Formats: sequence, C-alpha cells, structure tokens
Amino acid sequence: MYIMNPLDPKEFRRQGHMIIDFLADYYQNVANYPVLSQVEPGYLAKLMPPFAPLNPEPIETILQDLQHQIIPGITHWQSPNYFAYFPSSGSTAGFLGEMLSTGLNVVGFNWMSSPAATELESTVMDWLGQALKLPKDFLFSGCGGGVVLGTTCEALLVTLVAARDKLLGQIGRENAGKLVVYVSDQTHCAVQKAAHIIGIDPENFRVIRTKRSTLFTLLPESLLSSVQKDVQNGLVPCYLCVTVGTTSTTAIDPLGPLCKVAKEYGMWVHVDAAYAGSACICPEFRHLIDGVEDADSFSLNAHKWFLTNLDCCCLWVKDPPSLIRSLSTHPVYLENNASESKQVVDYKDWQITLSRRFRALKVWLVLRSYGVANLRNFLRCHVEMAKTFEELVKQDKRFEIFVPRNLAVVLFRLLPSAVANIGNGRLQNGSVKIEDVANEINRRLLDSINGSGTVFMTHATVGGHLVIRCAIGATLTEKTNVIMAWKVVQEHADTILNNEIKSKFGIY
Amino acid sequence: MYIMNPLDPKEFRRQGHMIIDFLADYYQNVANYPVLSQVEPGYLAKLMPPFAPLNPEPIETILQDLQHQIIPGITHWQSPNYFAYFPSSGSTAGFLGEMLSTGLNVVGFNWMSSPAATELESTVMDWLGQALKLPKDFLFSGCGGGVVLGTTCEALLVTLVAARDKLLGQIGRENAGKLVVYVSDQTHCAVQKAAHIIGIDPENFRVIRTKRSTLFTLLPESLLSSVQKDVQNGLVPCYLCVTVGTTSTTAIDPLGPLCKVAKEYGMWVHVDAAYAGSACICPEFRHLIDGVEDADSFSLNAHKWFLTNLDCCCLWVKDPPSLIRSLSTHPVYLENNASESKQVVDYKDWQITLSRRFRALKVWLVLRSYGVANLRNFLRCHVEMAKTFEELVKQDKRFEIFVPRNLAVVLFRLLPSAVANIGNGRLQNGSVKIEDVANEINRRLLDSINGSGTVFMTHATVGGHLVIRCAIGATLTEKTNVIMAWKVVQEHADTILNNEIKSKFGIY
Repeated sequence: MYIMNPLDPKEFRRQGHMIIDFLADYYQNVANYPVLSQVEPGYLAKLMPPFAPLNPEPIETILQDLQHQIIPGITHWQSPNYFAYFPSSGSTAGFLGEMLSTGLNVVGFNWMSSPAATELESTVMDWLGQALKLPKDFLFSGCGGGVVLGTTCEALLVTLVAARDKLLGQIGRENAGKLVVYVSDQTHCAVQKAAHIIGIDPENFRVIRTKRSTLFTLLPESLLSSVQKDVQNGLVPCYLCVTVGTTSTTAIDPLGPLCKVAKEYGMWVHVDAAYAGSACICPEFRHLIDGVEDADSFSLNAHKWFLTNLDCCCLWVKDPPSLIRSLSTHPVYLENNASESKQVVDYKDWQITLSRRFRALKVWLVLRSYGVANLRNFLRCHVEMAKTFEELVKQDKRFEIFVPRNLAVVLFRLLPSAVANIGNGRLQNGSVKIEDVANEINRRLLDSINGSGTVFMTHATVGGHLVIRCAIGATLTEKTNVIMAWKVVQEHADTILNNEIKSKFGIY
Repeated sequence: MYIMNPLDPKEFRRQGHMIIDFLADYYQNVANYPVLSQVEPGYLAKLMPPFAPLNPEPIETILQDLQHQIIPGITHWQSPNYFAYFPSSGSTAGFLGEMLSTGLNVVGFNWMSSPAATELESTVMDWLGQALKLPKDFLFSGCGGGVVLGTTCEALLVTLVAARDKLLGQIGRENAGKLVVYVSDQTHCAVQKAAHIIGIDPENFRVIRTKRSTLFTLLPESLLSSVQKDVQNGLVPCYLCVTVGTTSTTAIDPLGPLCKVAKEYGMWVHVDAAYAGSACICPEFRHLIDGVEDADSFSLNAHKWFLTNLDCCCLWVKDPPSLIRSLSTHPVYLENNASESKQVVDYKDWQITLSRRFRALKVWLVLRSYGVANLRNFLRCHVEMAKTFEELVKQDKRFEIFVPRNLAVVLFRLLPSAVANIGNGRLQNGSVKIEDVANEINRRLLDSINGSGTVFMTHATVGGHLVIRCAIGATLTEKTNVIMAWKVVQEHADTILNNEIKSKFGIY
C-alpha cells in the first residue's frame, strides 16, 4: 500500500475539518478537565507501542488515542481555570494565522524565499510598535526595525551577542573576559542562560539584589554602585536587562533612571517586557515603559497576553546593523539579486536560526480580526478580573496581598498570623520559625488546590517567602471563574487550617 | 464593540472550516502559481495601511486580502514544480499535528507543564531513532535520548555549547581561547554562526578544503593533518561537524573514518544529516550513516524530507547530561515535585529556549498516518524521480551531471563545450576564460527558468563552478512535473544559446 498523495486536497479537507471539530469540542469542554494534569511520570510509555507502526493508521483511530491517551496528560493552558505561570493566550485569529503559516509552509529565511513573509513581518512589527507608541527609531519607518522570533530567550540571546560584538569591536576581542552583564535577582533566568551560551565569564554575571520594600524592582543606585565597582576593577559593562513585569511578582523596573546609568557607561539596554508589554497598547498602562527611548532593544511575547498562539516574541531594535553584523551569513547557495541590491530585509540575519516560519501571519490576523481598540478592552478586562480577585483576598483577614498588584497577576499568601495556631509546639520551643511554617502551609495550600484539578496556580519564592500567584489572562477566563477560583482557595485553606487544629488537639 | 470570546467554539469552528477550505483550494491550485514569487521589493508596503486597524475586520475581508495581497508574494514551496534549496515537505498529517499543537497551545517547558508533551516527544524520538537504526545509546531505551527542536541551527548551537563546556570542565575556562571547531568548506554556514555565537575565536574555526575529485567530501586525512597542526600549536580540538548530505551537492562525508580521527583527539562529533537523514529509514540508504555509533550527536530535519511541516529538527545525543549541564536553569518559579524527583525529562534543559511548542504531535501523526513502510516508499519515489531527471540530463550532450547524484538532488550545468561558440571574440583574445563564460551562461539559464515562474531551482557554486540544483522532494511533485521541469530547462537553454549565436552573427 502506498500513499498516492499526502497532500491530496480532498483528504486534507476531510481530515482538516475533523481536527477543527475536535478542537472546537475541546474548547467547549476544556473547563471540565483537571487543569493540572494528574498523571504520574511514565504514564504514557505504558500506553505506547514500542515501535512506530509499519503501516498507515486511520485518522479516526489516532484521534481516539489523542482523546484517551494524550488529553489526560495535558495541563490545560486554555482552561478558563488556568491561573499558573503567565497565560498562553490563544485565540481563533492566532490559531488561523498559524494554520496558514503551516499550510503555506514557506521557509522564509530571506526576502526571496517568500517576499510576503518578510514584508508582512516588517509591516506588522511597525503596526504593533506604533500601537505601543514605541519611539520611531525602533521602527522601520524610523531607522530601526522589528522581527518576530519564537521566544524571549531568543531575543535575549541575539541582543546579547550584538552587544558583545559591538563592544569587542571597540575594545578588542582579547577583552572578552572583561565584559559584564547586569540583571536583578528577579530577572528571568534566560538572561543568565544566554550569557552562559555566549561565553560571558560567570564571575562577570552580576545579579543585583532587590527588596520587598522597594517592590522587588532593580534600583538605579544599586546598579550604579555595582557598575562603578566593576569599572574600578578594570571590567567593562556590556549589557543590562531591564524587566517590565518580572516573572515572580510582575515588578516594573524603573526604565528611565536605569537607562540613564547604563548609557553613561556605554551599555546595551534590553527591555524585557515579555508579559507586561502587551498592556502598553492601553494609554493608561503605557507609562510602564516610559524611558524606552533610551533603550537599545525591546521585546514582548505576543503568545503570553496578546491572543497570539505560541510561539511569538516581538523584538524591536534601534540599530539593526548591529544585530546583522553579529548574525549574518553569506553562503553562496543563498546568493540572490534581491539580497545583493540591499533593498530588502533578510530576516535570517536577525535571528539564531536560518529557517523560519511565517509567524507574521498570526500577528496580522490578531490585529485585524480583533482591532487595537478591542484588544485594549480585552486586556483591561483581565486587569479588572484581577482587581476583583485582589478585593476578595483582601476581605479574608487570614490572607495578605503580598505586593501591590500590577496588571493581572495577584500575589497572595496565608499570613503567618493565620498559621500561628499551627505547629505551636515547634514554634514555642523555637525549632521552627513562624515564616517557615507560613511557607510550608502556603505550599500545602497550593498543592492542595492544584491537586484538586479545579484550578491551577503556581508559586513565587521572593525575599524568603513562598507566595501564591494568580495570573489572570487565559482567553476563556471570565469573572465567574475568578470568583470560583477564590472560593476554591478558601475552601482548601479552611480544610488545611482545620485539620491542623484538629491534629493539634488530637481530634481525628 | 467588544469581543466576548476570542475562543468562542462556534466562531472557531466556522472560521477554522473556512481556512481548511482555503488551504485545500490552495493545494488544488498551487501548480498554477508562479513558483518563485515575481513581486518587486516593497510591493506589500504599498498595499498595506500604515496602521493596524482600530476595529475588528471580518475574516472574509482578511481572506480576500490574503488571496490578493499575500499570495502573489509567496514563493510556493508546496508547488509540485518547486525544486529549489531543499524541499519543505508538508503533508496532511504534519499539518494536523501542528494544528493540534497550536490549538492545545501548551507551553511544555518541563514535564509538569504538560506531561503528555514531554512523554510523547521521548516516545516518538525513540520510535524514529529505531526506524533509523540508530545505536541504542542514542535512545532513551538505551542511555541517550532525543529532543525535537526547531531547526538544525539550534541542534548545532546546543551541541557546540555542550562540547565546549565538557572540554572546559577538563582543561579550565581560561583555555576557552584555544578551542578549535572543524568543518569542511561544504558544511552548512550555521556551524560558523553557532561557533561565533558561543565565542569560539574566529581564528580557531577551521574550514577544511574539499575537491571535486573526491566529491566534495571531507577527507579524514585532511582533518587529521589540520588537527595535528593545531595540537602542535597548543590548540585544543573541540568539535567536528560531519555532514551527511551537504547543502550544495549532498556530499556524504565518510562518517566512520572521520569519527576515528576525532575520537583520537577527544572531540565531540556531531552528524548533520538535516537532509539525508530521513532517507536512512530505508535499508538501502542506511549505509550513509554507517559509523554513527562513534558520534556524539545526530540530527535531521523532519521538515525537509519527512512530511513534517516546518519547523521540526530531531536531535539525538548519547550523553544527555552533558547537554543538561550546559543548558539547565533552576528558577524558583519553576520548582516542582516531578522535576525534583528526577524521574522526568524537562526538555527546557535540552534546548536554548524555555517555552516550547508540542512539536512531537507532528512527528506522531506523520509516523502513524503514513507508517514507516509507506514513508520509505515515499522517499524512494523521490529518488526514482531524481534518477529520471538525471537520465534526461545525460541524454542532452550540451549538459553534464556535475557530481554523481546522491538521493534526490541532481546537480547539472551547461558544459563549457556547449558555450564555446559564445563570446568567442572575448574567449579568443583571452579577456575571459571558458569556465567564466560557462558560469555566466548557467546563471542566465537559471534566472531565465526561475523568471518564467514555471519551475524554481537554485544554484550551487562549488570548486569555482556555478551549477544548477534540481532538488526533488516537494510533496505534490510527480514524475510529470519532473519531465516538464527538464523540458523547461531545455527550452530556456535553446533560447539563450540561440540568442547568443544570433547576437554573435549580428542577427536580431
């Protein structure tokens, strides 16, 4: 038996419609699944045959296995009861864009390989940059430009390489060991990984401490004193990552003052607005990136909170030639007249990989299908829901809001005072500290709610405190889900605290 | 106006079905489009509004613009008349897998974030590894393992970092400047880019010459003499990239003997089988990777010639801990019991980025929908078509097969003897060389056929010769397309050669 045509239009149509229906049903029912998958490690290996099949299997069989073997092992990021990490905000438009990209299946490494892929990307990056009111020098319509990458990790890696090479071009390769990269202890771990990859000496990776009293933001004076010390020691400041919306607590580093310090020392400043960047299309949140005019590069993940299915990181740079100098390749097999004319963008020289998907279609469909005004309302709606959740937490005196809410992530915990009745013996004889008991109980609370499958939240550990994060932004989440989520938290807290008290008094 | 629900199942279903029909129609008609897009640089900017729309637009309008504005700027990699670069081999199963990945939209950075995403990936990588008869120590069922990345560029970068760090762990970071990376002049440019990114001294990037007489393969004796010289100069051999199916001519580097040299000097050997790897599921081609048992890592692009839509690079390594040591991160916000148990794979530590799509679904659907036996036949069919094309070239004495065909890429050119009647004046007075005239005419021939839009081929420049590449492997290509393609080449050759002769004799 031989497949005559694996792209037979009739069969493509039949099977494609089946998958659309499968996914539409999935969205209809996703609220009924346990949000966090409850399977055990190795569950799937037990269900799978040891070898790939020799002969074709019908799509109907495969879809049955998908439903019965794969779906139970899915953690449902699209569930309305998903409040973990950051959202992975899918949408119909984002999905359609990816379908088109996958269906056309062009490999847009350079302009010639599909001019529309390159030109649409430049267009939508300018559109989105304008919606964010990025300074004109980040746009193609200025003298900068934007590129759609997969993830922020890539944006960090390419800007780090560009920053490194730009500086070494001035001071000489032999000084590579002197370059210093600055982050805060709240910066995403991807910067450290990227710095390691490009060969920054681990001794020169500067992690600056933040404090709860200053909301876990990177303080310009802390940066300055760190930089001054390094310069005195003969080191060379190279790169600063400023975060607008940190992973643990959505802290907003003060961009303007930090840029001022960095610029004085000739550093490249990258603004990682992976999460919070999307919200900056709303005038009332745009101030979060005030000062971006002094940065060198800026990125956000449209797959986090901009209705664009994974993966989609938008990166703008002021000086594309500095990226291109570091990342361009000129193999003879890719030579072509368009590239030689220098009239076109060849995006392969803006990224790590050569091959690239036509991701701009996703951004184009999202912007056109929903419109900027509508997208603003959508984001505002999440922020409103987060306010609702925050108010509910505040009404329960056993809990505290750990840091003031920015945007749509609420950080809360059971207060040490609420757990003071617990493990009293251990507390009184001094063998444990009240904060440790609080951390332990908050972790048990989180494990308990996640184990129930009704909601999924994750934790942050900041300043020694374990805190529960409720990140609102899944596309299907509505106010009722948020109210229910809080009810779940309270019920599990009741059970845990009551059981502890019962156990203290020997009641089983 | 406000979108109530951007994932409304009813609207998702309606629009999803529209896109399926759009793409099915596209496949039906794709042979009618000019294969290489004929637009001019900047064509799209003229058609696009300067700003993103403020208000939603209906999908019907967007699809009209897609058809009239975007499709003309597409180079049709899915056309049956596409013979350029390497194929981008899409299929219904590959497409469905990507739809499911996009629809479920999970962010599978670690096991817990979606156990099925991790476990299915480990399963299909073992399945595919077994189908390739990779040694057991590359499989999870041995003590190695595989990961699905986006592209070979990533596979090269992660293995280079692992190789660098493994070696520096032995000889000390202070010797980073001594590490040497070895490639041939036919190796993909991605290795040089990756070496640059990780900070290998450009002086220590060794590009070993190949020759036409030895089929542009990397000779073990050339490697050995290069390595010996470096070692004598106090340098430290670090990494060798062996290519099975080079980009320009699909040369097959002799894996076994090269590994022998590399192992003697403690180098990491990566096998880049981006193109040719897929064919090794056929017993008659498996010998191309004989010797892989002595390599450290092996990768192929399933999106090139394995019916898996872009992007999908399969990488196997013998020693996963060496990857993980270089690429792991342990942020507190990702701590979880499963990771701490060390019973699970966390694929974030096998790659550059944190976030990752559920690409294993594509591989799973391709393997199950088509079956291994059928996939073998599919690849064989392309090889047969390439044989047909090769035979046709051989029958026309104006042309030569430039290097013996491996698999499904044919390299050919108009012979210098065929162009000897051209530019004779210049040839006779010695102002040009016959080989330069041949290169010029072959380039004009290629531009002419590509400009016609009827087929798309690309060139290679090897050993000073410009050669035309006919890469067969687009999913829709049938024997009639191949025969037609050769007819197109001949017709354009006739025209060019006749015009030249007319112009020589002053006939216009």
